[in-house]
Amino acid sequence: MQLNNIFLHHVYFWLNNPGSEEDLKALLLGLKKLATVETIDQYHIGLPAPTRREVIESSYAVSWLAIFKTAANQDSYQVDPIHLDFIKECSHFWSKVIVFDSIDAAV
Amino acid sequence: MQLNNIFLHHVYFWLNNPGSEEDLKALLLGLKKLATVETIDQYHIGLPAPTRREVIESSYAVSWLAIFKTAANQDSYQVDPIHLDFIKECSHFWSKVIVFDSIDAAV
Repeated sequence: MQLNNIFLHHVYFWLNNPGSEEDLKALLLGLKKLATVETIDQYHIGLPAPTRREVIESSYAVSWLAIFKTAANQDSYQVDPIHLDFIKECSHFWSKVIVFDSIDAAV
Repeated sequence: MQLNNIFLHHVYFWLNNPGSEEDLKALLLGLKKLATVETIDQYHIGLPAPTRREVIESSYAVSWLAIFKTAANQDSYQVDPIHLDFIKECSHFWSKVIVFDSIDAAV
């Protein structure tokens, strides 16, 4: 089934302490709380799959996919107090973050 | 709603001819055909959103998200004739591809 009329916000986190199970767990719990932002339609909290090929980036620690029904809902999420709290409480866990925002291609 | 029990395969493509609307369209149509692989549960064909912040990677041309119900379904997709045809017919359109595969985090 084709997903359409959505705004995809996919974030990949690299940990400050890559070996720390404790930090990983704390970040995952932070995301679980972040997921309560009302304008999020669907979300997935992920870890790297064990797949390995040259084109696969598997060095990240956590994947956070948030799907919104509109770009405006994503804008609202960015300034939602729950999101701001998440950044305040969890940003020390990560050393790097990459965000890919995508909208529908007309196809 | 939390997405669970899924395998996320998210691919980002950079075009060989970044300015070519024709190549972009051909790649999008190739993905539309690729989407007919039977083991794909849901998919999204995307373009970069107009959001711009330091952490946002917006230099890619096309986003391809395929959601599978199992890792085995993704394995099967990798060797599906439709996927192999896609690579044969479309790989000359891209200069770079990055793949992020993710599975559920237990949270």
